[in-house]
Amino acid sequence: MLSYPTPFTPPTTEDDRLSWLRLIRSRRVGAVTFWRLIGEYGSAQAALHALPEIAKAAGVQGYEPCPEPVILKEYKAGAAAGARLLCRHEPAYPTALAELADAPPVLWCIGDPGLLSRPMVALVGARNASSLGQRMARKLAEGLGAAGVTVVSGLARGVDTAAHAAALTTGTIAVMAGGVDVTYPTENAPLAREIGEKGLRLSEQPIGLEPQARHFPLRNRIISGLARAVVVVEAAARSGSLITARLALDQGRDVFAVPGHPFDGRAAGCNMLIRDGATLVRGVEDVLAALAPVTAAAPERSERTAPDPDPQRTWRDMATLHSQILDRLGPSPMAEDQLIRDLALPSATVAPELLALELEGRIQRQPGGLLSRLD
Amino acid sequence: MLSYPTPFTPPTTEDDRLSWLRLIRSRRVGAVTFWRLIGEYGSAQAALHALPEIAKAAGVQGYEPCPEPVILKEYKAGAAAGARLLCRHEPAYPTALAELADAPPVLWCIGDPGLLSRPMVALVGARNASSLGQRMARKLAEGLGAAGVTVVSGLARGVDTAAHAAALTTGTIAVMAGGVDVTYPTENAPLAREIGEKGLRLSEQPIGLEPQARHFPLRNRIISGLARAVVVVEAAARSGSLITARLALDQGRDVFAVPGHPFDGRAAGCNMLIRDGATLVRGVEDVLAALAPVTAAAPERSERTAPDPDPQRTWRDMATLHSQILDRLGPSPMAEDQLIRDLALPSATVAPELLALELEGRIQRQPGGLLSRLD
Repeated sequence: MLSYPTPFTPPTTEDDRLSWLRLIRSRRVGAVTFWRLIGEYGSAQAALHALPEIAKAAGVQGYEPCPEPVILKEYKAGAAAGARLLCRHEPAYPTALAELADAPPVLWCIGDPGLLSRPMVALVGARNASSLGQRMARKLAEGLGAAGVTVVSGLARGVDTAAHAAALTTGTIAVMAGGVDVTYPTENAPLAREIGEKGLRLSEQPIGLEPQARHFPLRNRIISGLARAVVVVEAAARSGSLITARLALDQGRDVFAVPGHPFDGRAAGCNMLIRDGATLVRGVEDVLAALAPVTAAAPERSERTAPDPDPQRTWRDMATLHSQILDRLGPSPMAEDQLIRDLALPSATVAPELLALELEGRIQRQPGGLLSRLD
Repeated sequence: MLSYPTPFTPPTTEDDRLSWLRLIRSRRVGAVTFWRLIGEYGSAQAALHALPEIAKAAGVQGYEPCPEPVILKEYKAGAAAGARLLCRHEPAYPTALAELADAPPVLWCIGDPGLLSRPMVALVGARNASSLGQRMARKLAEGLGAAGVTVVSGLARGVDTAAHAAALTTGTIAVMAGGVDVTYPTENAPLAREIGEKGLRLSEQPIGLEPQARHFPLRNRIISGLARAVVVVEAAARSGSLITARLALDQGRDVFAVPGHPFDGRAAGCNMLIRDGATLVRGVEDVLAALAPVTAAAPERSERTAPDPDPQRTWRDMATLHSQILDRLGPSPMAEDQLIRDLALPSATVAPELLALELEGRIQRQPGGLLSRLD
């Protein structure tokens, strides 16, 4: 068994920060892998050094970490865009997000990072929201803002736009799917600029990255990861907001949903969430009531550190487990319970790896606790 | 301690039936008292004999049971109206209703009592229901009927009317607040007649009784008592349907509610119920899913008998307990928990008496488990 030299401290030097950025930008290194590597090798630099060897052992030939010049370029581009790099465990990095197993190692931020230290609630919902849905988003955002809560959303059309706009003066955070400097959709460029000035925009992705489909679920985990609670304002049956809601549940966040009449298709997703245990929201009071123990307590940051990863499990073990999982899964869905029993491993060991594979787009979760393989 | 000669069998002779009717029609004898008396004295006749003495001991002077001629008149009026008297524990008397501590000793029925042996679901809701609400009531009633479920409701305007009308051909039961032959509201006379022909109308009240406000909550306990589940289709914040829903919960019935957008005031009651734990209904499938274990099993009657009442508690004990409860309560609300602690009695002993006092209109339940005295 290895013992680690006090892992999970923020980078202390500029070189260290560059190594973090380089490690997370390296091919096949996602957030979960990043933290395993840091845990195992003690520093980003040591992990970068070990990566080609590890890849070789896992059967990947000619693996190279992200080249240094790419990182230097991103670093300069960030500065040019007026963005600040925030590393996990630095004081401004939000505690709730830092506690996730797949916490983003780095976040590019434009705006006021002070908003990250206030209680946060995410408002999400349909891009093609009804006027009723947008009115509800505005009302909730105003009410949350008035109560000193930062409103987090994704800068999408519809509910997101209504929520950000209503919370501009009280405090709002837009989590971007692409680079922190890349506005999507482009029609929201003026709102994005205003949020950068009065609120905060952030992203874990490289500066300048145009968002692609696979970036949205990753972005959604940050929205729910920042927030104490996620409120789904209006959502159809199979919509992205439901993915955010499920991520939020997996992260131990409170999930709220605004109901609608069953004859209104735009309420189907919310009604389903409520049926499955989300708290029904009639107005902002219902959300604030659930937050009361938090907002009443001092909202300042606690100096908690993330739980240590299981020290017996190395990156190589993890690669083996990933193969075992993928071997057992096919395109027809299989129950997660059954899979875990077949693997004969504790659920706590398997669950983060399933999430990792899911975020990597290799497996897909389906209703009823079913999993299937995508690739 | 007394031992009872096999109580809780149905009346065996016509005289016995008349005694039951006479006992329940006697002043200050409600359903709960009726069963206590039968339990204590072994038969309705013996209880009628003992009543003046018991009343005297409780400080009521000159008490007389209901005069025999009044009963004979009701009996004849029932026959003339084509109604049949159904006594608890007779084979046609529905099992679920018979199991209530305050089961109606007698029910006057017009129509097909066979409907009482099928699974039953109650549909209740606003009298001033929106067209959306009425459409939903119709859809649910049709779906339940198609699945072989009897639809129970209260023949009121709005949701009740829509539900009965949609289930006329498949089976519907109207529980009347006044006499089984008295249609309220009068505009529903044609529907009431049709239900008497194709479905079933029933009431525990005397033939010919015009319903008064206090009869409606009593009627509502029969609606929910008959049903395996109560579905609230549309209900404002402080409405009678919510009382039915609460009675249903007290009776261990499943409570369902159809959500609506929070900006629609007519959804406030349903949304509140869902928030407080009722199951959200999107369509009839949600109701049928919850009933599945029942409808899948053979729906025939089981020959269960009601649980014996606590044999150590006599009618006199109960009168004493009622006084103790009323002494402790005032117009300002008091927590039920606190009251039960103060009485130093098991909750199972106090709860049915609170319900009895509530149904008698002497105490009132308020949100948050609070009780206050009315008289």
